[in-house]
Amino acid sequence: MFEDKEQARTPVSELGEFGLIAHLTKGFQLKQPTSVKGIGDDAAVISSEENKQLVLTSDMLVEGVHFDLGYMPLKHLGYKSVIVNLSDVYAMNAEATQIIVSIALSNRFPVEAVEELYSGIATAAKLYGVDVVGGDTTSSTSGLIISISAVGQVESERVTYRSGAGENDLLVVTGDLGAAYLGLQVLEREKKVFEVNPNAQPDLEPYTYLVERQLKPEARKDIPSLLAELEVLPTAMIDISDGLSSEILHLCKESGVGCNLYEEKIPLDPQVIQTCEEFQLDSTTIALSGGEDYELLMTIRQEDFPKIKGNPNLTVIGHMTSPGDGAHLISRAEEKIPLIARGWNALKEE
Amino acid sequence: MFEDKEQARTPVSELGEFGLIAHLTKGFQLKQPTSVKGIGDDAAVISSEENKQLVLTSDMLVEGVHFDLGYMPLKHLGYKSVIVNLSDVYAMNAEATQIIVSIALSNRFPVEAVEELYSGIATAAKLYGVDVVGGDTTSSTSGLIISISAVGQVESERVTYRSGAGENDLLVVTGDLGAAYLGLQVLEREKKVFEVNPNAQPDLEPYTYLVERQLKPEARKDIPSLLAELEVLPTAMIDISDGLSSEILHLCKESGVGCNLYEEKIPLDPQVIQTCEEFQLDSTTIALSGGEDYELLMTIRQEDFPKIKGNPNLTVIGHMTSPGDGAHLISRAEEKIPLIARGWNALKEE
Repeated sequence: MFEDKEQARTPVSELGEFGLIAHLTKGFQLKQPTSVKGIGDDAAVISSEENKQLVLTSDMLVEGVHFDLGYMPLKHLGYKSVIVNLSDVYAMNAEATQIIVSIALSNRFPVEAVEELYSGIATAAKLYGVDVVGGDTTSSTSGLIISISAVGQVESERVTYRSGAGENDLLVVTGDLGAAYLGLQVLEREKKVFEVNPNAQPDLEPYTYLVERQLKPEARKDIPSLLAELEVLPTAMIDISDGLSSEILHLCKESGVGCNLYEEKIPLDPQVIQTCEEFQLDSTTIALSGGEDYELLMTIRQEDFPKIKGNPNLTVIGHMTSPGDGAHLISRAEEKIPLIARGWNALKEE
Repeated sequence: MFEDKEQARTPVSELGEFGLIAHLTKGFQLKQPTSVKGIGDDAAVISSEENKQLVLTSDMLVEGVHFDLGYMPLKHLGYKSVIVNLSDVYAMNAEATQIIVSIALSNRFPVEAVEELYSGIATAAKLYGVDVVGGDTTSSTSGLIISISAVGQVESERVTYRSGAGENDLLVVTGDLGAAYLGLQVLEREKKVFEVNPNAQPDLEPYTYLVERQLKPEARKDIPSLLAELEVLPTAMIDISDGLSSEILHLCKESGVGCNLYEEKIPLDPQVIQTCEEFQLDSTTIALSGGEDYELLMTIRQEDFPKIKGNPNLTVIGHMTSPGDGAHLISRAEEKIPLIARGWNALKEE
């Protein structure tokens, strides 16, 4: 419904692979001191700062699986594809510094469409201060595939794994949860309305926060530096891409501990609460299983609590327990309910 | 014709994304001293050796564009997808150390097929001494897509770009050229024969080298260390993925020089010469435009010639000229023919 049918259509074949990459990346500048060589050689060259380690992550987004161009404008898709990768870098407590972008696209995409996609990528890169140091553009027999690799740097002693959580550590989450998933529900409903009545004007006003969290998610670039400032080194950290319960179970498994999560502590935006009522959904379930929030979930030592207390970015939602205890949600009614992974999983048919 | 229709078929959905990655990567060990953390966290962690820079490259292979599973067994495909990336690392004069593998696949691929693919990836990684430090496996609506990122390390003063070639530098190539492209021609011919007569037994005996160069190419891991041993630092280097002429033009453009390439010097395997005769193809054209050889093309200073003279891995095929001269092939008949890029280009419709 958001696609512009009037746009110019220059076939990609007019430029060819090298021409297209040159065209798309001509405005890109290297800003990071560690970016030695960007696009234009066999590989990018990156220097490492003293006492720092590099983190490296990669994610692939496939049309029809991870996104639907029916309600995801290409520019937003480009933006989001960078964000999901940066989120993984921040989850290591690192600063994101470089990305490499690979795109495969079918001939239904004209140059103008790829420009849209790249403008979203460029916007995210600029805003998050990462350099685009590599690019590969190729054909696909059907649809659009975006694969991005992201590099970050972090002082060796501050790298934070999933595996360091200890018994009695506090479970802390950034921001609020569930909004991105609800945004998708809103968009899917509007798409169905549009399919039945193409003249219907979507009224997204009451859902602006939700739709924005779905279409233009942000990654928590601020958290690694905030933690350094607060002099808090998390014992474990992970980003919330699949849903809170799934990520908690990852931390428990990798760290060999159990967890009590308190339902009443889970941070929810008022729009999430209202929209859950309207859609007759349970807001806790949405927060636990919704996914795509790109917030960070971490564990910190009890003695660090005074340092984070009152910080609006950080909410304590539970604590780690002994391994034998397993992972549980403690409900408002003080029931103890085992946590199960119900996160979004591209390969599991549900 | 090489597909085994009898194989077991376990649907990928039985394992799910995390289960599948765990299953596929359980035998992977970290051997590189710079691999701090491999698969199993939000990102891999890599340390950098003192005075070294990192090189980073990424390539995406798409079914129906870069490979045809009709004559490319999955194990070979996995192997080749690693090789094409390592080749880019070696082209920077670096040692390849880590790779990250992202795969998207449709539900027509059972777990056994993905295992085949991964066994090829694992074989290449082991043989080339690189660690698989990351993996992402997801669904695709159609076909198979493989995206690999490779990391390498190199002493800062030995990084070799495309842009350093000077006038009068010698143009040097490793190995021999054209075989991979001819291998593809042989396989495509056999596929057509098979389509007409499914009982036909392919006779690939006279083409073993060609078919192997196409299906199981190797990257020149040996060259960066050989060059260091010979105390030769190339002024420029690139890998030959698109064909010799296209790569020469890249070197000329990035270095701002011209080039004379001598037809009689281009190294050809006897099987290439014989098969070109049989197929009525011009072997020079095949070497210039064939692509997928994954040899390295470099320029060295004239004074370094004695150091490489007689080395069976390195053949001088021309020299760089002043920028105004352009890039030319000097034919056996001593005609001067302008080089044009006719390399394989996934986006250019020819």
